[in-house]
Amino acid sequence: MVITVIGLGLMGGSAAIDLRKRGFATKIIGVDNDRINANAALNIGLVDEICDLEEGVKQAELVIIAIPADAEITLLPKVMDIVDKQFVTDMCSTKGQIAQIVKYHSKRKQYVAAHPMAGTEYSGPWAAISGLFDGKAVIFTDTEESGIKSLAVVKRMYEALNMRIIYMNSTNHDVHAAYVSHISHISSFALALTVLEKEKNEKHIFDLASGGFDSTVRLAKSSADMWAPIFSQNRDNVITVLDTYIKQLQKFRNLIAEDEQDQVKELIKESNKIKRVLKQ
Amino acid sequence: MVITVIGLGLMGGSAAIDLRKRGFATKIIGVDNDRINANAALNIGLVDEICDLEEGVKQAELVIIAIPADAEITLLPKVMDIVDKQFVTDMCSTKGQIAQIVKYHSKRKQYVAAHPMAGTEYSGPWAAISGLFDGKAVIFTDTEESGIKSLAVVKRMYEALNMRIIYMNSTNHDVHAAYVSHISHISSFALALTVLEKEKNEKHIFDLASGGFDSTVRLAKSSADMWAPIFSQNRDNVITVLDTYIKQLQKFRNLIAEDEQDQVKELIKESNKIKRVLKQ
Repeated sequence: MVITVIGLGLMGGSAAIDLRKRGFATKIIGVDNDRINANAALNIGLVDEICDLEEGVKQAELVIIAIPADAEITLLPKVMDIVDKQFVTDMCSTKGQIAQIVKYHSKRKQYVAAHPMAGTEYSGPWAAISGLFDGKAVIFTDTEESGIKSLAVVKRMYEALNMRIIYMNSTNHDVHAAYVSHISHISSFALALTVLEKEKNEKHIFDLASGGFDSTVRLAKSSADMWAPIFSQNRDNVITVLDTYIKQLQKFRNLIAEDEQDQVKELIKESNKIKRVLKQ
Repeated sequence: MVITVIGLGLMGGSAAIDLRKRGFATKIIGVDNDRINANAALNIGLVDEICDLEEGVKQAELVIIAIPADAEITLLPKVMDIVDKQFVTDMCSTKGQIAQIVKYHSKRKQYVAAHPMAGTEYSGPWAAISGLFDGKAVIFTDTEESGIKSLAVVKRMYEALNMRIIYMNSTNHDVHAAYVSHISHISSFALALTVLEKEKNEKHIFDLASGGFDSTVRLAKSSADMWAPIFSQNRDNVITVLDTYIKQLQKFRNLIAEDEQDQVKELIKESNKIKRVLKQ
């Protein structure tokens, strides 16, 4: 199958690698309005050729859009306007606003809204890796609005990427994504800022950067261009979750301040229950 | 060298494994007032024998205390009272209060206060692993109060564990530990509670547990018995850091609520600077 990947970063690039390796893609065309990214993707062999948007969509059987949430709002309708018989899917981390934008498009049935829940804190074509999606979940949203054939093709694509498919409407998706992904990123960004603020006066604080700090702050290396639009599009849910999170932190803060060790222990034990829902 | 490890959990057990493997320990005696832990440590071969406290200290050349911060406050002076020529070191994550407790003990020179900055979210003798300490930092605090010989022995021990030694006074240590370790744990505990609270009404939220959530919440599996006393002993520093952290989160919250995407991007870019201080 000829696949056109729009957006040759971590997500699009990693999909390209494994879709080719696993025989799902016979040819991969790349589209990226960043020339440096486009050339890099070509040079490191993520794609077979680089096209402009119109040409790329026309040549494809399946189009994968893998660009930041704000850019997709403009681009998805454009792609849908070009589309003839092509199938289209996207990888965006917010789904509600995008669902609205193309809800009444005449080619809506050819589009399958998806969110592969995978990633690393790195970005760009150089960050693309094989196996990124293996064993993770991909959320298909509002599938009742997609055609049977489109769904079957995109489903096969994600099966080639070894992903578990979960079905959900886009509104529920955005609530869940706020809890299990968006809040983690804000938590890491804020943690990084906290430590960096201290570092201004204390030169050597980072000699100590072990003890759990690395893993909780890992996501703070994530791209601003990707995440700011996500928080914007999922604003209401993100605010709700953030408010709960801040409330929980304040509960810890006050119990520690009052030296209520037994109650702090109870809170920690309660939080330990997260074990049962994590894989390891 | 005959070593007695008091507290046969993750830290003490992991030290036992590598100190034996690397030839530093010729015999390892275990002391643990939890019978189940003690038997497990003996059965899985972490230690050669189990003794009571007095006997264990007397037979040792070097005593390693690896128990929770609150228990150590009571136990360290007891050990120091039993000590004849033995050297003593500990692995506690807070150092200020412990420093006070033994400051004027007649055997103070035989004690070296240390905090190996390593660990996992698991606990107990079953959690002990080889290589836990390799390449990480260990903080030696208030070393001017330790004897030259004691320091030399404990230094050799941590060299056998492949750790980088950093010197610091106990007050500074506790400030730094609040920033690079204690806050990360509270951040994870609160994140876990936030998601668990939501889960009460939404049964399937955890099907989505990827997307960065796993790594930020990993530490929420950590032991309440270990962490509550740490937050208590390092109360003032932990509160200061928590207040800064909550302030940073509120900054994000308000900018997102006002949809100030450019300013959110700036904040994220600022937080990205954490890259330069993390190893990878």
